[in-house]
Amino acid sequence: MNPNQKEIEEKRGGSGKVGKPLLRVLQGEVLERPPIWIMRQAGRYLPEYRQLRARSKSFLDFCYAPALAAEAVFQPLRRFPLDAAILFSDILVVPDALGRSVSFVEGEGPRLDPLIAEDVWRFGEPEKAIQRLAPVYETVERIKAGLDDDIALIGFAGAPWTVATYMLQGEGGEKDRARKAVYQRPADVDALLDLLVETTARHLAAQVEAGADCLQIFESWAEGMPPPLFERAIVRPTQKLMARLRGLGVSVPVIGFPRGAGAQIAAYARATGVDAIGLDTSVDPAWAREALPSGMALQGNLDPLLLTLGGDALSHGADQVLAGFRGAPHIFNLGHGITPDADPAHVAALVTRVKDGV
Amino acid sequence: MNPNQKEIEEKRGGSGKVGKPLLRVLQGEVLERPPIWIMRQAGRYLPEYRQLRARSKSFLDFCYAPALAAEAVFQPLRRFPLDAAILFSDILVVPDALGRSVSFVEGEGPRLDPLIAEDVWRFGEPEKAIQRLAPVYETVERIKAGLDDDIALIGFAGAPWTVATYMLQGEGGEKDRARKAVYQRPADVDALLDLLVETTARHLAAQVEAGADCLQIFESWAEGMPPPLFERAIVRPTQKLMARLRGLGVSVPVIGFPRGAGAQIAAYARATGVDAIGLDTSVDPAWAREALPSGMALQGNLDPLLLTLGGDALSHGADQVLAGFRGAPHIFNLGHGITPDADPAHVAALVTRVKDGV
Repeated sequence: MNPNQKEIEEKRGGSGKVGKPLLRVLQGEVLERPPIWIMRQAGRYLPEYRQLRARSKSFLDFCYAPALAAEAVFQPLRRFPLDAAILFSDILVVPDALGRSVSFVEGEGPRLDPLIAEDVWRFGEPEKAIQRLAPVYETVERIKAGLDDDIALIGFAGAPWTVATYMLQGEGGEKDRARKAVYQRPADVDALLDLLVETTARHLAAQVEAGADCLQIFESWAEGMPPPLFERAIVRPTQKLMARLRGLGVSVPVIGFPRGAGAQIAAYARATGVDAIGLDTSVDPAWAREALPSGMALQGNLDPLLLTLGGDALSHGADQVLAGFRGAPHIFNLGHGITPDADPAHVAALVTRVKDGV
Repeated sequence: MNPNQKEIEEKRGGSGKVGKPLLRVLQGEVLERPPIWIMRQAGRYLPEYRQLRARSKSFLDFCYAPALAAEAVFQPLRRFPLDAAILFSDILVVPDALGRSVSFVEGEGPRLDPLIAEDVWRFGEPEKAIQRLAPVYETVERIKAGLDDDIALIGFAGAPWTVATYMLQGEGGEKDRARKAVYQRPADVDALLDLLVETTARHLAAQVEAGADCLQIFESWAEGMPPPLFERAIVRPTQKLMARLRGLGVSVPVIGFPRGAGAQIAAYARATGVDAIGLDTSVDPAWAREALPSGMALQGNLDPLLLTLGGDALSHGADQVLAGFRGAPHIFNLGHGITPDADPAHVAALVTRVKDGV
């Protein structure tokens, strides 16, 4: 055990109340100080992660190596008294398991072979995909086995539209191609979304079976969607995903994170059936508390840039987020993933600020 | 006169009522069919524009050539019965006139020398900048002289934050650099914003003096701004700009277009003093009508992608926008500028759909 480990555990368990703080907030409880975790908390800003990552040739191989992926999850927990661990994986393991060729190009993000229309029906085998994803569930089991009782374990997946966006466009940059597909061949896109709903529901259910305490659905491409497309490609498939998840017997809370959805977050929160909402950097806490269903847990939304700057800007920014959500069921997080140039010392300062107010 | 010109004029003046339709809507009037113009309606999707543009070596030279810039403005009006002409210029003429080196790199967008701190005070001379911008006002005069009575002439400028973003970062891609500057040296950024408020107010006032009937302020970098920065760098400077404009005796209506601002549009609409709001593609008309001050004219917000597709997708999309704003003071437009791959035939079909419902 790390010399700081005892102190860290004391900080986490400080309240003395029953249950993991993150799960209590997800059930609508308002805590005096919010639980905290950080999107991409296991990641490149940590030197020990970069060292670990170097042991595997490709990023996907790393995701599929339970010992390595689980170790990545534990790294930030040894440094900071965070309230949650999140599975180390990628939203593109789903298309990968469905038989698409996925590769990650250094500095450019993921690449997939662009999808052609008939493909949608040809390759879709959710059951086989889940079998191929067995290493991911083994990772969840390993994390669960090593996790302190107070720390919640979050499973996750990309939302159907976000994953479809990658599949339809091949790579990150050309978002228009996916939107164009919805206009030009809506039936094909619906079929693809249905396939992703089914596969993603099973993928999330398997993570819960392996030990995940709650789930997050990343809708990373909600930005700039015209309302009719937002309804068709984001709200409806997420609704279906939630219904299918519940149908599979999964009852754990689900956080939806529709990044860049602007005021459309309200429709998303009301209609999809998710239990909590992740808010991106641009959302005003006061607006969210008024516009979203009362009592719904809210997660977010510090500007990640502040973790590269530190100092007064960071403390002040953190205090503004804390004040904005005071009195609401709030999970402290960033409004976007932590960046590789963030300083771990700033992360430590942030966690202390959030947990102890100093 | 183009053979279609008479028919086009009849379509425009069809209502028989007094005043330019666009200005009537900006004053809060609800018309049976909304007036329409298209952001970047003078632009690369028109072959005659590409031909005209080839006569000038650099894009900024083109902007500073009144005969060429005015001709670009008239080109789309000869094709389509649009209700407004917009000055052909660029938001970066302001930093250019303030002495920054601006250049446009084909396919990459604008480049400016990055700003260093003391620069902010060193080069700021609003009066000299306005003198340098004389060709822009001559362009406005030329457009005004050739414009049909029913067509409104829109002047424009970039909002202080959007222009500052370009000045602070040097080029389009690296948005973080400007946001970082607000955190790291807020006083410098405030000084820069104040300089831009003063210069932009005078620039807009000069356009009105030359004949502009109304104005649009482009806030193209409102996206992803944390609420405290949105308030400091967007709302406050726009407030100051509006107050200064009114102080200079400018009374024409002003459309604010805070692109990507999401739910923060509501704060922008309430606090800045603009008369009307341009809505980007992602804004739900129903939400805007409820969240923004009652009776405020709303402009937007068709997905520009539909002008590359045409057909049923375009008609259906246009009808959804029309229905969404029916009963409100509405100016039909896109939610973002028209793209170079748009088909002029689709633009013609859109204008007919909006004006005649067929």
